[in-house]
Amino acid sequence: LVRREVTQIITPGTLTDENLLDPRRNNFLAAIALDKQVAGLSWLDVSTGRFFVTEVESEFLNDELARLQPAECLVCESEHDRDELTGLRESEIPITKRAPWCFVAEECHRLLLEHFEVQTLEGFDLDSDQNSLGIVAAGALLEYVHETQKRAIPHILRLEPYRRGNSLLIDETTRRSLELTQKMRDGSRNQTLLSVIDETVSPMGARLLSEWLSNPLMEIPRIVKRHEAVEELVQNTVLAREIRDELKQTYDLQRLTGRIATGRANPRDLVFLARTLAVLPKVKAKLSERSSALLNELEANIDLCEDVRSDIESQIVDEPPLLLTDGGVIRDGINEQLDEYRELARGGKQWLAKYQTEESERTGITNLKIGFNRVFGYYLEVTAAHKDKVPEEYIRKQTLKNQERYITPQLKEYEDKVLRAEERAVDLEQQMFQAVRDRVAEEINRLQQDADILAQIDVLAALSVVAVQQGYCRPEMCEEPILDIREGRHPVLDKIQPSGEFVPNDTRLGGSTGLIQLITGPNMAGKSTYIRQAALITILAQMGSFVPASEARIGIADRVFARVGASDELGKGQSTFMVEMTETARILNSATPQSLVILDEIGRGTSTYDGISLAWAVTEYLHDVCHSRTLFATHYHELTELPERLKETSNWNVAVREEEEQIIFLHKIVEGSADKSYGIHVARLAGIPPQVVQRSQVILDTLEADHVGGQNKQKI
Amino acid sequence: LVRREVTQIITPGTLTDENLLDPRRNNFLAAIALDKQVAGLSWLDVSTGRFFVTEVESEFLNDELARLQPAECLVCESEHDRDELTGLRESEIPITKRAPWCFVAEECHRLLLEHFEVQTLEGFDLDSDQNSLGIVAAGALLEYVHETQKRAIPHILRLEPYRRGNSLLIDETTRRSLELTQKMRDGSRNQTLLSVIDETVSPMGARLLSEWLSNPLMEIPRIVKRHEAVEELVQNTVLAREIRDELKQTYDLQRLTGRIATGRANPRDLVFLARTLAVLPKVKAKLSERSSALLNELEANIDLCEDVRSDIESQIVDEPPLLLTDGGVIRDGINEQLDEYRELARGGKQWLAKYQTEESERTGITNLKIGFNRVFGYYLEVTAAHKDKVPEEYIRKQTLKNQERYITPQLKEYEDKVLRAEERAVDLEQQMFQAVRDRVAEEINRLQQDADILAQIDVLAALSVVAVQQGYCRPEMCEEPILDIREGRHPVLDKIQPSGEFVPNDTRLGGSTGLIQLITGPNMAGKSTYIRQAALITILAQMGSFVPASEARIGIADRVFARVGASDELGKGQSTFMVEMTETARILNSATPQSLVILDEIGRGTSTYDGISLAWAVTEYLHDVCHSRTLFATHYHELTELPERLKETSNWNVAVREEEEQIIFLHKIVEGSADKSYGIHVARLAGIPPQVVQRSQVILDTLEADHVGGQNKQKI
Repeated sequence: LVRREVTQIITPGTLTDENLLDPRRNNFLAAIALDKQVAGLSWLDVSTGRFFVTEVESEFLNDELARLQPAECLVCESEHDRDELTGLRESEIPITKRAPWCFVAEECHRLLLEHFEVQTLEGFDLDSDQNSLGIVAAGALLEYVHETQKRAIPHILRLEPYRRGNSLLIDETTRRSLELTQKMRDGSRNQTLLSVIDETVSPMGARLLSEWLSNPLMEIPRIVKRHEAVEELVQNTVLAREIRDELKQTYDLQRLTGRIATGRANPRDLVFLARTLAVLPKVKAKLSERSSALLNELEANIDLCEDVRSDIESQIVDEPPLLLTDGGVIRDGINEQLDEYRELARGGKQWLAKYQTEESERTGITNLKIGFNRVFGYYLEVTAAHKDKVPEEYIRKQTLKNQERYITPQLKEYEDKVLRAEERAVDLEQQMFQAVRDRVAEEINRLQQDADILAQIDVLAALSVVAVQQGYCRPEMCEEPILDIREGRHPVLDKIQPSGEFVPNDTRLGGSTGLIQLITGPNMAGKSTYIRQAALITILAQMGSFVPASEARIGIADRVFARVGASDELGKGQSTFMVEMTETARILNSATPQSLVILDEIGRGTSTYDGISLAWAVTEYLHDVCHSRTLFATHYHELTELPERLKETSNWNVAVREEEEQIIFLHKIVEGSADKSYGIHVARLAGIPPQVVQRSQVILDTLEADHVGGQNKQKI
Repeated sequence: LVRREVTQIITPGTLTDENLLDPRRNNFLAAIALDKQVAGLSWLDVSTGRFFVTEVESEFLNDELARLQPAECLVCESEHDRDELTGLRESEIPITKRAPWCFVAEECHRLLLEHFEVQTLEGFDLDSDQNSLGIVAAGALLEYVHETQKRAIPHILRLEPYRRGNSLLIDETTRRSLELTQKMRDGSRNQTLLSVIDETVSPMGARLLSEWLSNPLMEIPRIVKRHEAVEELVQNTVLAREIRDELKQTYDLQRLTGRIATGRANPRDLVFLARTLAVLPKVKAKLSERSSALLNELEANIDLCEDVRSDIESQIVDEPPLLLTDGGVIRDGINEQLDEYRELARGGKQWLAKYQTEESERTGITNLKIGFNRVFGYYLEVTAAHKDKVPEEYIRKQTLKNQERYITPQLKEYEDKVLRAEERAVDLEQQMFQAVRDRVAEEINRLQQDADILAQIDVLAALSVVAVQQGYCRPEMCEEPILDIREGRHPVLDKIQPSGEFVPNDTRLGGSTGLIQLITGPNMAGKSTYIRQAALITILAQMGSFVPASEARIGIADRVFARVGASDELGKGQSTFMVEMTETARILNSATPQSLVILDEIGRGTSTYDGISLAWAVTEYLHDVCHSRTLFATHYHELTELPERLKETSNWNVAVREEEEQIIFLHKIVEGSADKSYGIHVARLAGIPPQVVQRSQVILDTLEADHVGGQNKQKI
């Protein structure tokens, strides 16, 4: 009689079960629609309702997917094998193929209009002609969500156009090389930039922080607004702590809202919502009359939602059960009928106890017991020993090994009354609960806005905590392509190394100091660290954070490029060196005078002279054509001749102190070129057998002796 | 009245829900117990019941974890921060800390004895004194499973000791470098050796194949037994196809068994089990009278389990609903009482239709309808228009906007009769179903044995399919440390490149041909591919597979080492070069005359002369001390002098044809040393701007001209 239907289809991208989701990150479902050169891309977090759309040139599709890391990606089955999707197919992202009719433009457009109940998408700043591919992707995505969720999804309130130009571009290789959110080696979150700055106290904040880090800003006024807010919280650590203490009391408002909107919220969810709303007045009070514009704005926009909160608090008990069917969700004294049913049920149970005692006394069956099972309801249980005392009017229903079970008319009467009363109480509670949930669901817009605000406050406070704990400074931003960092540190190493051990370094590029630094010197001395920290500091500054330095002046970068290490793609028929050259080509073809370029070894994958020649010519090109700020760490001592020829280029090296047998890396970058690389020293530290180490030294001495004569070189 | 309790705690390592598990891989829960130098390690797949234990020296712990890739790892909270677990902590494996009392030796031992209902663990070939650490790990693991599953786990029938010495050792670095089961770049399964040979048709087979690949054998008789079976299937492709067609009809017997044992199996699971058992006689028939020992053995051990199958088939309908509570699970005609309830329920519904018609006619309420809700059961619904026709005896229960709802004594009588009948039918079905399930659960031992056999047959058939499709040959195995591969191919590239494009190469090491090959030559010409394919072919042969070659004679390897590419571990304060040297040191310190060593560039992370010196000394050490079969690809042209000094060493290079401006890589390895590396040519192919390419060529010409004079070198 009760029909059961499939109520929800669960797929990786449409998961909403909190136990299976990482609260710190968005769980995006993405959809791609392809045209000739361009791809429409849309993504949605079903659990929070945030829904985005964009169009990108196909070649940047992988960069965007790397930024988003979707949990599932929808593609048209007829487009699945196209070249543009090679990167996707080879990635770990689960692909779901959809029928071509899901990607019909008019249908997708119609679906969006219908869902948002609008006449046109212009209100979302989308043009159905110019953004047609994005609209197809968004429509196909929404269609899939409707199909899998099988219920209304009213918490998806708007479609946000995302424009690449608005944020600092970081391509996939760079993102991986710099380990912004994932470690290169194993893809873990540990020891990434994100893990170091994530001092947020709420899942909403954690997700927003990750979003900010993936999309640093490019407009100085917006950046400065964030810096100002962080600064105010840095200067008032008591305020920051108090706000964070309040935020710790909140639950994941975005995901709660999602569950309420889709009718999946349980009684506890509503109580959690009310508790979260109870925090709002306190946060608002703490934020009143602040000097920074952003904090003021956030404070002004907090909607206390007192109506929603009192609706919940007045009806739902403080500690409801997880399951509605357990009963006891609605407060006593709210509904007369409900109170009556409950009274009846309670009375019934007392009757049951009384009946058992009475019957036991009347019949002399001392261990008479009342039991219940689903097949024939309440029964009296008599052990074999007392079998002969069973009165005539008992009706036998079941014989077990050592006992028999009976019913009586009185028991059945009781059953009807009490069981029904309990059932009815639960059913009535269910109706009342659903009514509250439906009313709350109508206020989702306001709740989502509050969720956004709490997330922003959490991120700003978190950044202030990092700044204070790690001794960051507020960077000065400018349009000029310069980079002037005093006592800069690598944010990750600075955090994980024991306090005071990390050696800070200045970095100066652009302006009067030259655009390109060539860094030579031994391994393990910190060249890689030094060049990476400049990129990380730039990204931190542009996302709105303070930076690990004593002082910093940072010219807005339009792109950050990093090429470090080497990774093989044998499957693609690319050698290590081919990968290296492809990445280098991409930098040379795209870097602008506003870009920051980090190169860690170029040409290592080929023979010595080939490598030197290429590294040399690449440096010339960056200097003459791209004119980008560049940090280039290299083992080719030969390149130290370049500054004589290229005026914007200078030599740097890592200071080393030799003491008898010992070599001490000072991790300090100083002007000038290095003369030794200490490779054999490192080999010894790594555990290479002593006889190999000694023999290497003999060979090295011979080689160097051979080449001393080679100094009178021709001019290149 | 119905008490709800937590029935199961779900954690990553104890997941059993099929929708959340990858059927192709085991989902292992692991536990570690530490002592001074040794670690006890135990692992279990809760879904299939396979349970292992071992002890390893702490330094190999990471290798084992890399091999197992557990979904969750238990450690004692007091041991969590120990150095031995650094690798684990930095990995992506979720760690669950357990209280120290879970790791108390006697308690763990007792728990295992109790679970397996044995007096001693000696029956599992475990000694409580010698294997005490492993027993602690296994006991702590079992304790956790009891705690989370909250039910009996009778399908965990035995504890299998795993001994490292039994299988070819492949350390973590080598496993990653060779991309056996995961791609280096993104950890995906695509284009790995596993993906290429996985032609299994059942999840059980897929998991076992992965296990064989992770644990290649070392004993020739066991390997040959597998080769023989594969050969028989290669020669009889019709048989292989027929067996595979049968196996395609099976369901995941291991996981089905697991669900049955833990009482979580639904009606469909039992039907799937019966269908799977129905395949057994056909498979057994096909395998009868085969010539290979292994196929014969497997055939002989198949237990048809006809009793189990007929028990299910006689009681459960062919297409039962997923949920027991939907009813209709048990066949008609099995149980009189059940048939009676069903008849009653069906009759009741007819009565209901009749009653509606009668009442409608009697009262003249033409649109009278019968409805149902949970609050007051069945009711008659009358629209406002007909309100005045309602007879007196109707009892009003609810007034809605346009209609009123009534009950009558007849309706309530109906309700009691029919609703109860349906409920009782479902309850009775539930009891009967559970009885079947309990009986089946008692036969788990036999079912698991069949599952193991089906998995082995599937793997052997899959290997035969790969061999036929890809033209593999049966390798000859020997104890002598030689490697003689004729027309060998890289199994992955051979598969993904268009047919016939991959260029095969011979590889001969050991015996009369010298132990060490130095391979020089240009990039993209296939050096890396050539050296890796030798390692992959060795691993394939030792796991029991045919190999991609026209002929192969393979001396059993005790370890395979591969050092390729470079990966940074900045977080650990290790530079690329430090990682490279650490890995090299490990090879030099562990390689034996029975090992196979693959080196792809040594010393690239340091300056040129340091690098050459180290590579030179490493080669000498491998030659003089380790005496291991070695393939060494290098860009250091200087090393080509080595064969003059080391008798077991020879020079090889990759053939290139130059035609006017074009350079054609022939991918053929030929004896002798290379003279050019063509790095600039590769740079042009990668899209480096033409002016950079031209300039590099000029610089290269100048450099080479400078060094022509340096040939009269001192003797090293």
